[in-house]
Amino acid sequence: MSLENLEEIEELIENKEFRKIKSELEDENVVDIAEFLSELENKYLAVIFRLLPKKKAAEVFSYMEKDQQMVLLDLFSDKEMKDVMDSMFADDMVDLLEDMPANVVTRVLGKVDKETREAVNKMLKYPDDSAGSIMTIEFVELAPDMTVAQALDKIRQVGIKSETVYSCYVVKNHELLGVVSAKDLMTNPVETPIADLMNENIISVHTTDDREEVANLFRKYDLIALPVLDVEDYMVGIVTVDDAIDVLTTETTEDMQKMAAMTVSEESYFDTSVFQHAKNRIVWLLILMLSSTFTGMIITKYENAFAAVPLLVSFIPMLMDTGGNCGSQSSTLIIRGLAIDEIHFNDIFKIVWKEFRVSMLVSLALALANGVRVYIMYHDLSMAVVVAFSLVFTVVVAKLIGCMLPVFAKMIRLDPAIMAAPLITTIVDLCSIMIYFKIATMVFKL
Amino acid sequence: MSLENLEEIEELIENKEFRKIKSELEDENVVDIAEFLSELENKYLAVIFRLLPKKKAAEVFSYMEKDQQMVLLDLFSDKEMKDVMDSMFADDMVDLLEDMPANVVTRVLGKVDKETREAVNKMLKYPDDSAGSIMTIEFVELAPDMTVAQALDKIRQVGIKSETVYSCYVVKNHELLGVVSAKDLMTNPVETPIADLMNENIISVHTTDDREEVANLFRKYDLIALPVLDVEDYMVGIVTVDDAIDVLTTETTEDMQKMAAMTVSEESYFDTSVFQHAKNRIVWLLILMLSSTFTGMIITKYENAFAAVPLLVSFIPMLMDTGGNCGSQSSTLIIRGLAIDEIHFNDIFKIVWKEFRVSMLVSLALALANGVRVYIMYHDLSMAVVVAFSLVFTVVVAKLIGCMLPVFAKMIRLDPAIMAAPLITTIVDLCSIMIYFKIATMVFKL
Repeated sequence: MSLENLEEIEELIENKEFRKIKSELEDENVVDIAEFLSELENKYLAVIFRLLPKKKAAEVFSYMEKDQQMVLLDLFSDKEMKDVMDSMFADDMVDLLEDMPANVVTRVLGKVDKETREAVNKMLKYPDDSAGSIMTIEFVELAPDMTVAQALDKIRQVGIKSETVYSCYVVKNHELLGVVSAKDLMTNPVETPIADLMNENIISVHTTDDREEVANLFRKYDLIALPVLDVEDYMVGIVTVDDAIDVLTTETTEDMQKMAAMTVSEESYFDTSVFQHAKNRIVWLLILMLSSTFTGMIITKYENAFAAVPLLVSFIPMLMDTGGNCGSQSSTLIIRGLAIDEIHFNDIFKIVWKEFRVSMLVSLALALANGVRVYIMYHDLSMAVVVAFSLVFTVVVAKLIGCMLPVFAKMIRLDPAIMAAPLITTIVDLCSIMIYFKIATMVFKL
Repeated sequence: MSLENLEEIEELIENKEFRKIKSELEDENVVDIAEFLSELENKYLAVIFRLLPKKKAAEVFSYMEKDQQMVLLDLFSDKEMKDVMDSMFADDMVDLLEDMPANVVTRVLGKVDKETREAVNKMLKYPDDSAGSIMTIEFVELAPDMTVAQALDKIRQVGIKSETVYSCYVVKNHELLGVVSAKDLMTNPVETPIADLMNENIISVHTTDDREEVANLFRKYDLIALPVLDVEDYMVGIVTVDDAIDVLTTETTEDMQKMAAMTVSEESYFDTSVFQHAKNRIVWLLILMLSSTFTGMIITKYENAFAAVPLLVSFIPMLMDTGGNCGSQSSTLIIRGLAIDEIHFNDIFKIVWKEFRVSMLVSLALALANGVRVYIMYHDLSMAVVVAFSLVFTVVVAKLIGCMLPVFAKMIRLDPAIMAAPLITTIVDLCSIMIYFKIATMVFKL
């Protein structure tokens, strides 16, 4: 039997076979236990939780979902609360308390020591997307005049309470002098002075730095942890690689939501209520819907044209879709390139030139394919010419708009992700319909 | 002065002031040096590279771009080649050799020891997206009957050549018995037997597992490294967190490319040629362009309708855009949820029910806004009713199609990312135009 079998465990609880459950839980990973608890009815939550050993319970608690954490916090005795909080890292505590009501925050922080309380209070004040909000304060601090042996002793003392012991920080008067890896400590003679071993070429961030830029540093330099400095350049905490991965995931999800014209939400799909989903989606839909009425108005202007040549109407969907797709291809590549630091906004001319050449190749191929198709299907050369030329202009315009808008957004410090498919499509639609009817009225002399 | 100043360094090379360059490079991070080299002209490459200390040179080499690695490989003496290869990890060597011509592969592998050569050859045969292709063979292997002191000795011996020493693997007869962290080794008494310390609840993967699933395990369990087993369950290598981050980044970029109707490419934007860009984009554009001609054909069928009521044409863009946007909102949420393992395909009924309720809320709001606008602008109640009802049906259909197709794709083991905005839009367009003209002909009795 394993944790997979929810009903069996619920039966065991009903039958009060606690020893059996305890032995089940013993070998399980904390993440798996938290996941298992999330599927359990809330009434069983406290029972199971209290079967876990103290240290493991705290770890499981960090991985639990917010609503379940709330349930437990309500049920905890003062002693239990203190035990869990003592074993929790500051960054997990900040995650826990972020959206909690003030009375819960006060009660929880009342159970931790003064130093942690002050640090957590400070971290709660950092903006949501800053390095300060994802850092933790539990790290191994070494002095430059220590030897490797003394450093190893220090790790033995504080190791359990540190989120990572694999990067150690050499600090003097709050100032970060260098970084020593645990690998260096383990592979060098015990009498080596730390000052000789430390790497002084430090990659660090400030509490107010954007968390996405912090995460990108992990990717670029293959880091396990990164020191965080405050405004006075004092070392105040570290960010660890697991938090960096979470940031990369969250930021990507947010980018995708923006790119699909939604208001950003950090909640998971199922945790978001139907009403909230609707709210997240309606704003952009309304804006874009009203914008695309302009395209409709342009069409109304050419009523006489399609009264004379009704076939004209039937190419509108193809032109609009192709324009939208071309624009979103370009904008997606640029938005992603900007996000992972592969493209910078001073590359704008290189980008435009590249997209122009790509759009020429693509548009000629599409125009040829469609021109031939129209000629074969309708035996109407003028119509084939109109469709082909409209396609060429539409594709070129779409690709140029698609690549430029994200870069402009970046320049004026907006998020490039909002300049994605939906907005680009609406703008490109307007252009393509104008181009199309302009060309049509010229060719058909309407 | 720092590496930022390209021209100054080029001047230093021209003036043969090598000692100065050498001292410049001394304090720089290997990633920054590789980045700096990528901007340097190729003719200066070897000069600078040879100024680096042996060990650092190999690290820089791993971080360099492929075309520059090629240039250097051509220039290397046998001795230089051996030095660099000896310091390189097997996974970096696989990355290097993956797309190289056979003669280069042979020459490079001729310089490494037999064991490495065999391992690299094996890894080169794993599919591109498998765990085997991203693993490395340099890890710390412990025996269960060792003590902590013996384990630390072993790390001192093999630590330099291991990609990570922070996760050590307890192996007996090739079989993985447990994992010990360096933290445990550093914080426990030296006489403790490894067998007592090791965690037997091992999270592991197989060489043939999908690399994205492997990366997702890192995210879920906050890992630093993960053991890889072969078909016989023998331990053959590890995947480290930096490679997992690279996989997450690459997979997300690929998902975004697919979602924007492009053929996937692992090359960066600027490294991809104009011709290749065009090739990556044209296939889907052609497919989607031809599909949207069906929508055009439907419109042609209703020629009499818009001949009688020309205003009908002007709402086509608004309906198409809104339908497309609604569909892509739903499909984006589902595709992302599936990718990060938040949504599973047996959630299909929960998803459909949720999206249906969301679409009811959204569509009623949009229909109301637009119906009122149409009535105010054109004083035409029938037209307002047609537009409003068409919107309601279009939005509901769009959201249902948008949420179902990615899940179906997952069910039949296709990549859900191809069921994204462009394809959904094309399908939804067809539906919305049909719905619209059906309702219009009914209301206007055409």
